[in-house]
This record gives sequence, structure tokens and C-alpha cells, in this order.
Amino acid sequence: MPEQTSEQQEVLTLDELRDVWVVLSGTERQEGFHLLSKMEAEDFFLALPALDMSELVLALPAEERRSWIRLAPPDDVADLVQASPPEQREHLLALLDEPTRKEVAALLAYREDVAGGLMNPRYARVRPNMTVDEALVYLRNQARAHLGTIYYVYVMDETQRLVGVVSLKQLFAAAPDKTVRDVMRTDLVLVEEQTDQEAVSQLFAEHDLLAIPVVDGEGRMKGLVTVDDIVDVVQEEATEDAQKFGGMESLDAPYMKIAFLRMVKKRGGWLAALFLGEMLTATAMAHFEDQIARAVVLALFVPLIISSGGNSGSQASTLVIRAMAVGEVRLRDWWRVMRRELATGLVLGIALGCIGFLRIFLWQQVAPTYGEHYMLVAFTVFFSLIGVVTFGTLAGSLLPFVLRRVGFDPASASAPFVATLVDVTGLIIYFSVAAVMLRGALL
Amino acid sequence: MPEQTSEQQEVLTLDELRDVWVVLSGTERQEGFHLLSKMEAEDFFLALPALDMSELVLALPAEERRSWIRLAPPDDVADLVQASPPEQREHLLALLDEPTRKEVAALLAYREDVAGGLMNPRYARVRPNMTVDEALVYLRNQARAHLGTIYYVYVMDETQRLVGVVSLKQLFAAAPDKTVRDVMRTDLVLVEEQTDQEAVSQLFAEHDLLAIPVVDGEGRMKGLVTVDDIVDVVQEEATEDAQKFGGMESLDAPYMKIAFLRMVKKRGGWLAALFLGEMLTATAMAHFEDQIARAVVLALFVPLIISSGGNSGSQASTLVIRAMAVGEVRLRDWWRVMRRELATGLVLGIALGCIGFLRIFLWQQVAPTYGEHYMLVAFTVFFSLIGVVTFGTLAGSLLPFVLRRVGFDPASASAPFVATLVDVTGLIIYFSVAAVMLRGALL
Repeated sequence: MPEQTSEQQEVLTLDELRDVWVVLSGTERQEGFHLLSKMEAEDFFLALPALDMSELVLALPAEERRSWIRLAPPDDVADLVQASPPEQREHLLALLDEPTRKEVAALLAYREDVAGGLMNPRYARVRPNMTVDEALVYLRNQARAHLGTIYYVYVMDETQRLVGVVSLKQLFAAAPDKTVRDVMRTDLVLVEEQTDQEAVSQLFAEHDLLAIPVVDGEGRMKGLVTVDDIVDVVQEEATEDAQKFGGMESLDAPYMKIAFLRMVKKRGGWLAALFLGEMLTATAMAHFEDQIARAVVLALFVPLIISSGGNSGSQASTLVIRAMAVGEVRLRDWWRVMRRELATGLVLGIALGCIGFLRIFLWQQVAPTYGEHYMLVAFTVFFSLIGVVTFGTLAGSLLPFVLRRVGFDPASASAPFVATLVDVTGLIIYFSVAAVMLRGALL
Repeated sequence: MPEQTSEQQEVLTLDELRDVWVVLSGTERQEGFHLLSKMEAEDFFLALPALDMSELVLALPAEERRSWIRLAPPDDVADLVQASPPEQREHLLALLDEPTRKEVAALLAYREDVAGGLMNPRYARVRPNMTVDEALVYLRNQARAHLGTIYYVYVMDETQRLVGVVSLKQLFAAAPDKTVRDVMRTDLVLVEEQTDQEAVSQLFAEHDLLAIPVVDGEGRMKGLVTVDDIVDVVQEEATEDAQKFGGMESLDAPYMKIAFLRMVKKRGGWLAALFLGEMLTATAMAHFEDQIARAVVLALFVPLIISSGGNSGSQASTLVIRAMAVGEVRLRDWWRVMRRELATGLVLGIALGCIGFLRIFLWQQVAPTYGEHYMLVAFTVFFSLIGVVTFGTLAGSLLPFVLRRVGFDPASASAPFVATLVDVTGLIIYFSVAAVMLRGALL
């Protein structure tokens, strides 16, 4: 590392600030921000997540706030206002110019996770009867406004209804004297204001588009969602799904920033619910207490058996949840998935059963632990593993379907949830197999 | 639903074909594809994943293949070739025109998951000393070639070194007689050919860009990665992470399409490894066999105790893995994470401990199950839960750091892996607490 003189320390690059941003206090952030060049500061500001943007704006001196908030496009301003403390929202809205304030107020009426809440109300527009050359000149004027994107140009009739779309690339490549109507596409991919963001992101993935227009019930254009917003959405949805799958409520906030108590609450709720479910194992075990008293050797394999069910169930539910999230498996596929998972469960169960059998058999030769009836114990473990793994795999793969069917998020079929479900059943399978196998010998 | 006449059945819309595509056989796909209009078929073809594209091209009559493969941009052709059976690759490459074949061959030299493997080698370029008007005319000519994007224009000097970038939007909005140098940006966000795709997708998320240029070691431009490719990458990486987290190798293929045996192998390997690890619980339990024989009541709570450790561990590891994946937590943050999780684990452990204590206490009043020393049993469960949940939370949060430190993917700190790790420790904690609490009473 080159030595730093005190003068060099005054200079801060964009990347350096990005690197340390998360760990800086409000005052430090404001100081760091002021060390950037004007252009860098603008880039940095525009790329900030809504919460950081709001904190930064509110930390700045009152006279600087207006120019910064006016720099952001209306959809980002709406997010910023939504991320701000309620008592500051009026103040922030008052900093905007009148037309933008109206746009932002309209956006605030949408939920954050629907197309209307993601869209930018400013888009490039032309009329169908313009020539390509006229359209390009007209666009060159619009380019000076803050458009969401100029790269798709939306063709609207007199009633503001969307009739076509043409990319700037196509306009560029087209013969100058053709009309917009000649080169526009009319088979539009569009969404309605209330379309869920997950559905919007699937449309982007399917069609490889840079932007999708948002229309109201009458087909009038309201704004457009651009793909850069969708990259954030995809990340966000994946984080939510992962957290649900890890057995908790999704945090809805960065891990390093969420308040301790809020996080404990989000984790504690699910953990307590799972704990209450898992209490059924204690009830089930109490039911088999006599069996255990007579054959303590049975207790030794309880953790092994039930965890195998949980592990195979968590594999199956992950696969199905992800396949559903990317739109590859739908509700009506449940029957094909079930057949496939039944076969998989049996094969995996037999494999684990063999390993378990060998383990008991070989261990007994080296260090006799399991008593004279060890072969019967080994067979009990063998058959139980087949049953438990098959059941775990089936339960894990079908639970996401059941949850979706009754209107819940399939991602809630978390590893811990499946494991809890499978644990009780696993115990019942194991002790039932034991009752049959060991009758007359140990029991 | 309206009745369909035999004539209407001949017509197939794009969306209908998309809906049923996954379940169609090769011949059916080819037939469905031929029912689309030319323009729709082209859109459909260009949006297909590489594997489907390859299967479709190879299913088409030989004389049709050339025009379809030439429709795709070079980066997609490279993916298509890579997804095809090895014996078909030469044949497919031979269908291309000479310059494209060279481009594709160059792309095939890169790994699929680095920037070089994602990039499109065709981009819009201008010289720094052109005027804005000259640049726009020059671009209008380039627009007729198949460019990756025309919306970012790259400014290169005589040695092909990248010196700046200007968006088409900026060119559009700029005064016509300025030079490109006046309006271009020189603080470039760029990646090298070998940059991993996960790092590329993080750059897109941080900077909200539509495309990022790829340069070689000397700063010469090689191509550009566009954001629509990155949406796929983000989905792919999230799927991989989710599958690893579910306790298996990532499938690297759609769930509904992967061959049965290949899937069983990918799941069976991890399941067997986890099973072997979990066998340590049988060893640990054998160690405590005497304790269990004397106090069978201890066995009843084994599943409850160890699953609580597993569940809290899986929550903690999910949070840390996701925070690492989105770049929010880095290796050097381990100490802050550890302190936070230690506190969380203690709070959650005390909460579950209280619930467990109450359960035993109240249940005993209703239906005496746990013998005369039930208060001692309840305290054993209380203290064990605090220990097990704290340990599980700590282990779950630190394991991703350990894995990343030694060069593994932190997402491998899966729920089942953490649970297995925590189960053995949980048993030791539980029976050790029991030994202390129940001495002289039950033991």
C-alpha cells in the first residue's frame, strides 16, 4: 500500500465510500458524501437503497435537501418517502415541484410490491402517424426530461391508450420516411397496476425485455417498470424465500441494520411455533416409554432416524419451492412431482437403510454394543429408514403444493417446518417397525 | 371458454406455446413452433434457454437450421453450442457465417460463469473527437448490425482501448455540436474477462446499469454484458444457493427435466454424508445408555432438544449466507455477527427454555407422566435449551464464515449440515446438564 499524505486522505473515491458505507454512522456518511465530486455524489445518491437515501437526505442540512431529492426519478422518490419516518413524509413531499409531487402522491397509493409501486410514470411517447424521422426529433426533445428509459418508445392514440411499442434501436435502424405505425409492434407484453412484483420479474425473465409498460383496466398507459428495478426485486424475493426456508419470517431489512429486538421477534415467533410442534415428539416418545425401558438400545437410533427424515424432506421441499419460484413447476404438476419423489424417496431410503444396517452389523463385530439381538435391531433400523426417508421426501415435496393451494407462500415449507412435521411421524414409524421386528425377542 | 372450431385449433399464440412448452416432446415442440407467425417464432426462439434452443434447432429439418441459428446473437449461439451434444457442435458451428464463427469460437474459450462467457462481442462504438451529430449518424448505421445494445456507446481510441462511455440518452439530449469527449464519462464501471458472474451481478445491482463493458488486461474492449443476461444469472445463483442450503449438490438443470439417476446421485451423495455425520449421535447416545436406562424420562426430550438446536442454527446460517450472497456481510464482519448472534441465541434460548419448563410443569399437573422428580427434569430441559439454542445459533452463524475462509461456498452451510453438526453437541449438552441436575435423584 502506498503511504498516504494528509492531503490524499481528503480525497475519497466512489468505491471506497461504497465499501465502508454500511458501517458508517449518519454523520460520517454525510461527511463522506460531501467529499465526493458532484458527479460521483449524484451517481452514488441515485444508486442508494431507499432507506439509505432517506437517512442521507434527512441528515443533510435543510437547504441542501431540495436539490438532492429533486434529482431522483419519481418512483425512487416514492420509495424514499415510504422508507422515511411518518412525521418527515410531508416535509419531504413539500420539497418537490408541483407536477412531481402529484406523480409521487399517485405512486404512494400503490403497494410497494406491485407493478404500480415499481413503475416510473415518465416514459417516451410518440403518435402512430409520425414518420421515423419526426419521431426521432420529437424524442430528442423528450430526452432532456427525466425519463425512466428512452429506449422503448410507447405509441399512444388520442385517448392515451397504448397501441404499440417500438425500440429506439428499431427506430434508428428503420428507413427515415416510414411511419411509426409501420415499424411498431402491437403484440405487447404489459402488466396491470396491481400485478405482483414476482409475476413482473418472471415476465422480464421470459421475454428478455428492458422495460414493461404498466396499464390500467382500460388499457391506458400509467408508467413503465425498468429491468434495473427488477434485478433488485429478484434479489429481494430470493432473500425473502431463503429466510422463510430457513424457518423464520422474512426480515424485510438488511441483516446488519435491523434492530435487535425486531430481529429476535421475527425469529422467535417461528422458533416458538416449531418448538410447540416439536413438543409432539415428547408426547409420542412418552407413548413409547415402555418400549424404550425394555429396549434402551432403541433410544440410541432416535436422532439418526428422525434427522434422516428431516434431511430428505428438506431436500425435496427446496427443489419444489425453487422450481415453483422460477415458474417451472405449477400447482397442476403435483401428481408428476409426487410420483417422481416417491421413486426418489424409495431409492434414497434403501441406500441409507443399507448404510445403517452395515454400520450396526460391522460396529457390533468390533465393539459389541447392541446386545444379542443386534441383527433384529439392524433390520429395524433398515426398514425404518426406508419408511422415514420415503415419507420425508413425499411430505417435503407435497407440502409446498398444499401451502400454495390454500393460499400461503410455498416458501414457508421451510427445512425446519418439514423436519418438525417429519419428526413425529418418523418416531411413530420407527417404534411401530420395532414393535413388529422385536416382538418376542426384546419386546 | 369459447368453443373451438377445427380451424381455430390450428392457431397457437405465443403465450399458449410458452405455457405448455415444458411438457411437450421434441416433435410436438417442433410442430407447435411451426404454428407461430414468423415474428412470434423469432421472439420465442430468442427467449429460449440455451438447452431448449439447442434441442429445437437440432429437431428442425437440416435446411431450416441455418437461418435460425444465425438469428441469435453470438453470446447466445455460444451457449447453444455448449448445451448441445459434443458430436453436434462442429455441425452447428459450420452453420454460421465466417466472422460470427470466429466470435463464437472466441467466446467458447471462456468458462460459462465468468464475464467473458456472458458477454456479447458486438457493441456500439464511436471515436472521442466526433461531434454528437456525427456520432448519432454513425450509430444509425451500426444499428442495422446485430448489436448487444445500442443504448450505451463505447468510446475507443486508435488502439481499441476503452476511454469512455456515453449513453444514447445523453447523446440525444446533448447539444449537437459538442464532441463526444465533452459528454462522455471516463469513470467507468468495467469487469475483466475472468470476473465471476456473481461479482458481475453485484456490480449491476450496485450501479443500476443496463450493460457493463468487458475488457482484457490491457484495457482493450472485448464485449459487453447486458442486464437481461444478469436477471437469468441472479435467478440461477439463487437456485444454486437454495439447493445447497436444502442439503444437496445444486442440480444445474431444471427439476422437471433432469434425469432421474442424475438427480438421485446429486441428492444421495449429500444425504449419505449427512447420515454418516449423524451416526455420531448413535455413538453419543450409546455413551449415555446407562443414564437413559436409569432415567428413561430423559429419552423423551431428546428429539425436542436437538431439533431446537437445529432450527435455531438453520435460522442463523440462512441469514448470514443470504447477507453474504448480496454482499452485505463480508469475512471481516465475523466478529460483529458473532456478538449479535450470541445475544440472539441467549434470548431465544431463554424463551424456549421457559416454554419447555412450563410445558413439563403444567402437563405434570394434568397427567403425571414424568415421575416424582419432574421439577428436576423441567430444570434440566430449561438449562439444556438455553445451551443448545445458543450453541446452535452461534454454530449456524459462524459456519458460513469458516466455509468461506477455507475457500468453500458459504451456501453449503445448509440447514441439514448445521442440524447434523448441532445434534451431537446438543446431546452432549443435554446429558451433561442432566448428569449435574439429576445426581442423587434419578442418576
